[in-house]
Amino acid sequence: MFVVEYKDEILVIDGGLKFPEEDMLGIDLVIPDFTYLTDNLSKVQAIVLTHGHEDHIGALPFVLKQVNKPVYGTKLTLGLLEGKLREHGILNSVTLNTVQAISTIKIGKYFTVEFFKVNHSIPDAVGMAITTPAGTIIHTGDFKIDQTPVDGQTTDFSRISEISKRGVLALLADSTNAERPGFTMSEKVVGGTIDEIFRLAKNRIILATFASNVHRIQQVFDSAFKYDRKVCVNGRSMVNVVNIASELGYLNIAKGVLIDLEDIGKYNPEEVVLITTGSQGEPMSALTRMANSDHRKVEIIPGDTVVIAASPIPGNEKLVSKTINNLFKRGADVIYESVSGIHVSGHASKEELKMMINIVKPKYLVPIHGEYKHCIHLAKIGESMGIEKDNIFLPDIGDVIEFSKDKARINGSVQAGYILVDGLGVGDVGNIVLRDRKQLSLDGILVVVVTLQKGTNKIMAGPDIVSRGFVYVRESEELIEESKQVVTKSLDKCRDKNIKEWSQLKIAIRDQLGKSLYEKTRRRPMILPIIMEV
Amino acid sequence: MFVVEYKDEILVIDGGLKFPEEDMLGIDLVIPDFTYLTDNLSKVQAIVLTHGHEDHIGALPFVLKQVNKPVYGTKLTLGLLEGKLREHGILNSVTLNTVQAISTIKIGKYFTVEFFKVNHSIPDAVGMAITTPAGTIIHTGDFKIDQTPVDGQTTDFSRISEISKRGVLALLADSTNAERPGFTMSEKVVGGTIDEIFRLAKNRIILATFASNVHRIQQVFDSAFKYDRKVCVNGRSMVNVVNIASELGYLNIAKGVLIDLEDIGKYNPEEVVLITTGSQGEPMSALTRMANSDHRKVEIIPGDTVVIAASPIPGNEKLVSKTINNLFKRGADVIYESVSGIHVSGHASKEELKMMINIVKPKYLVPIHGEYKHCIHLAKIGESMGIEKDNIFLPDIGDVIEFSKDKARINGSVQAGYILVDGLGVGDVGNIVLRDRKQLSLDGILVVVVTLQKGTNKIMAGPDIVSRGFVYVRESEELIEESKQVVTKSLDKCRDKNIKEWSQLKIAIRDQLGKSLYEKTRRRPMILPIIMEV
Repeated sequence: MFVVEYKDEILVIDGGLKFPEEDMLGIDLVIPDFTYLTDNLSKVQAIVLTHGHEDHIGALPFVLKQVNKPVYGTKLTLGLLEGKLREHGILNSVTLNTVQAISTIKIGKYFTVEFFKVNHSIPDAVGMAITTPAGTIIHTGDFKIDQTPVDGQTTDFSRISEISKRGVLALLADSTNAERPGFTMSEKVVGGTIDEIFRLAKNRIILATFASNVHRIQQVFDSAFKYDRKVCVNGRSMVNVVNIASELGYLNIAKGVLIDLEDIGKYNPEEVVLITTGSQGEPMSALTRMANSDHRKVEIIPGDTVVIAASPIPGNEKLVSKTINNLFKRGADVIYESVSGIHVSGHASKEELKMMINIVKPKYLVPIHGEYKHCIHLAKIGESMGIEKDNIFLPDIGDVIEFSKDKARINGSVQAGYILVDGLGVGDVGNIVLRDRKQLSLDGILVVVVTLQKGTNKIMAGPDIVSRGFVYVRESEELIEESKQVVTKSLDKCRDKNIKEWSQLKIAIRDQLGKSLYEKTRRRPMILPIIMEV
Repeated sequence: MFVVEYKDEILVIDGGLKFPEEDMLGIDLVIPDFTYLTDNLSKVQAIVLTHGHEDHIGALPFVLKQVNKPVYGTKLTLGLLEGKLREHGILNSVTLNTVQAISTIKIGKYFTVEFFKVNHSIPDAVGMAITTPAGTIIHTGDFKIDQTPVDGQTTDFSRISEISKRGVLALLADSTNAERPGFTMSEKVVGGTIDEIFRLAKNRIILATFASNVHRIQQVFDSAFKYDRKVCVNGRSMVNVVNIASELGYLNIAKGVLIDLEDIGKYNPEEVVLITTGSQGEPMSALTRMANSDHRKVEIIPGDTVVIAASPIPGNEKLVSKTINNLFKRGADVIYESVSGIHVSGHASKEELKMMINIVKPKYLVPIHGEYKHCIHLAKIGESMGIEKDNIFLPDIGDVIEFSKDKARINGSVQAGYILVDGLGVGDVGNIVLRDRKQLSLDGILVVVVTLQKGTNKIMAGPDIVSRGFVYVRESEELIEESKQVVTKSLDKCRDKNIKEWSQLKIAIRDQLGKSLYEKTRRRPMILPIIMEV
């Protein structure tokens, strides 16, 4: 999420989510901390969107509940957003405004937004030029330059050139692939690979890709039509996107090609292709279930060709490998990453970024969207092209880049960062809860319960010890017995010393028992003493 | 670990460990289940080793405690093993026999083992031909074919050819890189890249790589000598390997080059190189500490060149990225994977595997060492070279391949699999404990304690509820209060129905409270009811 502010007006660009890091145990989603928007609610004029990926629109249901301002986006982007807003029950209370990839809109007193078409791994992606009284900012969105795009429309360089001729203050450019030399390959390349797979496959084809990659899905439909196969769509998000994209005209499905999952049994293996979710090895996804043989309706048959038309997103490598291994074990022939041309990126490589910088000729460069290392690489590209080092900004989350007449600088920061979503809870899980989950996950917990007599602290019942996630119960009986003695001794000692405060008793139990367990097991389970009184 | 058995004799090859999978929460190491060896102790003649990597010798301290049989390995392999046995306090009770890379040894009545040199990412790696009355088996160990190895010794194809002329029953070959076309690059390539980095670096160089890659470390020492830099070795395993390798003559360190970490301050930045652990972004390693600015002695200085001469092992990608991002943030110039020639694999690619198969000309092929997908690729290579499909085996862990006069087949399996090591516990953490840790890690725990009157089940104290890893305590007060009421109501209902069994009461509490919490939070914390009696 980016915020452009001029005097009393704020324009918001995108509102994405990220998926939890490995150490965010039990967390479902991570959304931006948008306190700055709720604190400045009256300033916010609108939210403008670049494209419909989760990391650009996924947090909007949460944002719009508190910051209900008009949203502007292209047709498919809004189509995908609508589904989310419906699920959250706020669709009818939000104003959605459809724009064209060549629209120019005026927002508030100060902002003019000129959209321009960019190529990306989802249709209807746009970048935008935001003209303010202080100058024009160009935000590329996520982009690449595809000279042979599936829908025939390339990144709109003539419009970008036209806008840039007026002079551009700052370029905010997608740095995701700034490490990669050369040019990113065209989506058409994947189409060619898919077509070749269709030509050769003798039995069923099962193809997994990102649900939002509508162009790739289109190419699968095209090959299916060409080789006379029926297409069956599988997996919740895949069904959802195929429905929205074909309703809105972004997916062209020949009549009679699409069949129901229930009907695949009616066709011979060589007459069918399944398009499915699960290209990231997600444990609950359709392809993973097939690989584990617990899909309700599809069983992998030896001779199936399974195509994973995607690269693993960083962090998913092992899940994807597991799925591939399991598919091979069930006798499928699996085509994946190791075959070139089965996936291409949606982000610009070095030479494309240079081209963008050359056309825009910005005074200031702000690499965005990548990890820090990617931003650094784009900064280096910028430097190599003559942008002064001082004119390139690598802001942290929340940093404010202030542009004044003759200079720009990082001028402090506003509240920003992550909000963790766990179930229905938004922001109720923080560092303490995560630290506890971490400790619980490593060595489990021992609960020590003891009932004391009021006043005397004489033990009336217990100590009882219950453990979970620590050791096998049947193997730990002796250990538990010894632990009870340790607790009794700690309490006796406290009584001898006339220590009566429960907090003190609990510390004594925790310390003594923790030490004793570590000596015996080299583990540090959480110890939770509970004292009752009668 | 592989077992070769003939009549009443067993020969064991290697005994490695693996690092825990993501779902093995809190586990330190995974070793093979070697019950088959303890069950057949008198049959076991010896353990022969291919090389000194953890995944080939790491489980031996555990194995040798119960299966104390003579070990055969090359000098460096045994040098590395010795350190482990010393830590476990069993060095003096184990017989270690040093072999040469061209040794032939007789083991028991039936086995003749002919070692042969192979190239790998650690010196002194060997493969072996094991001749039994039933024929000869060739086990490649981990290998590649390096035509320009750092130590001048290539994989010993003349010896392999000689042995193979007598006819080879089965080839067990390293499949790790069977997906990769062409040839794996020479380790010398990395030397060239490192040398170029030394030529250009204007300040300190900090280089991280695998501690066991002694050849790569040698090349760093060579470049340091050439460009007049002192070398400082950093990180426990790096110091350990450098000591062992230089003592045993595998690492040639020019006099005066090595300096102490304490003394780096005495030199100018351009006069120093640090070799360090942490190439995998391991949280406690030296490089990660530097990146996080919590290394006790080394602070990253803007202008440092940090070189990560390694690829991330699958599963470590995000840790490595995090380290790189943090190093960039501290102003270092970081050179890593995205630069070609900074790492090469130690495993044979497709063309090398073909060469091995062509020289050995085995009757049977058994792909080993890789994931299943890698084994499948090697199987395909074998098929493409004319080995009959029925003569290629892809056994599961524990499967027995039985070779008889004219055929081979998978003939059942023996007990095998994983044993989890957690602290001092070997095998005391199993599925139930892991399942509990998983649940605890996702949504935490609620402990419900209540003291009942003997006989009447009247509530005498409580219910008290303590939670960890569930929600912030200050935000959950209301929820906890409501939960207590739910518990009291469940217990009242049980008393009304005259249900007195504690197990029943606990089920009632767990069900009612679980339902209530899920409705309110969409989370499923572990609920642990504890009943005391007075």
